[in-house]
Amino acid sequence: MNAALKPLDPEGRHALFTGARTANTFADTPVSDAELSEIWELAKWAPTSANTQPLRVLFVRPGEGRDRLVNHMNDGNRAKTESAPAVAVLAMDTRFHEHIPALLPYKPELKDVFAADETKRDETGTFNAILQAGYFILAIRAVGLAAGPMAGFDAAGLDAEFFPDGRFRSILVVNIGHPGENPWFARLPRLHHDDALHWV
Amino acid sequence: MNAALKPLDPEGRHALFTGARTANTFADTPVSDAELSEIWELAKWAPTSANTQPLRVLFVRPGEGRDRLVNHMNDGNRAKTESAPAVAVLAMDTRFHEHIPALLPYKPELKDVFAADETKRDETGTFNAILQAGYFILAIRAVGLAAGPMAGFDAAGLDAEFFPDGRFRSILVVNIGHPGENPWFARLPRLHHDDALHWV
Repeated sequence: MNAALKPLDPEGRHALFTGARTANTFADTPVSDAELSEIWELAKWAPTSANTQPLRVLFVRPGEGRDRLVNHMNDGNRAKTESAPAVAVLAMDTRFHEHIPALLPYKPELKDVFAADETKRDETGTFNAILQAGYFILAIRAVGLAAGPMAGFDAAGLDAEFFPDGRFRSILVVNIGHPGENPWFARLPRLHHDDALHWV
Repeated sequence: MNAALKPLDPEGRHALFTGARTANTFADTPVSDAELSEIWELAKWAPTSANTQPLRVLFVRPGEGRDRLVNHMNDGNRAKTESAPAVAVLAMDTRFHEHIPALLPYKPELKDVFAADETKRDETGTFNAILQAGYFILAIRAVGLAAGPMAGFDAAGLDAEFFPDGRFRSILVVNIGHPGENPWFARLPRLHHDDALHWV
């Protein structure tokens, strides 16, 4: 017997894809550590190559930590991050391979392949961490919160501040919260499907 | 008034995250072009930096196209791709910046920034195409189909075969279909949350 899969209903499609928007302002409503963990408990299940799971998340809450973070954001992103009740710094663990014996028990020797080849390790780690960043953004929406991903920050400065031992490398910063006043810009166009899709 | 967001219900969470699995066998049930387009019509809405949307999708259907594709898959992935009723080759458009005036109408000059800086263009294009690949995998599940993403293929050979003008660069190949007999391996462990999550 084949497993039957259920498509997402219209409300779910609206929440994650068709109706979801990048938030640019946030309400004062706090976001609890339990809500932030819940995001991860969804995102962690989506697939990575050889189950490597190289993404790490630094959750930054209001206060001294957030003040330190804001200093490393580009000017255009500071006000947003200052008003977000939570911020996730998404990072790649450059030593993700140390977890391979636990995560891929049928092939623990893959750890040694990555230990011996830093280029391959960086490529695999970066690729899969970014893939997981995509899952993470949709998981924020899945728990009923708004996501505000931002690529505009000083990665070297942020890494020196929060990851001084050099093991984690930041890839994306994501504001998280409930939408505030006028939270959305007008929706930008999407590429025409004939430009995006090709068939053979 | 602030917008209220709705969390995904347990069935939706199961379909996309907690209950979804990478399929390793597929049923004979065909997948229509309309279903494949529907995946894109969800995935396209999720965010990219500066709305760049660099991901392109080559949908490969059974027949001569799929036979050509299978030749470029690693040995361990050939049987899966041979049995999938549809396969998506996910690729990055190295000239994505040409669409910027249409996609980011308030800042068309960003096209020229990327035109003048190939390193920045490649970095931005690759990052955002991978992010979109994450969205795409979850969108396959959202339409009620099973995804089988594979990083194991000869990218140079595949690109020469399907993208001979060099504009598109493949990043991931994803089998798509309804699950077949014994479609799932035992679920692999996930990283302990104390290893993945950090707080400040």
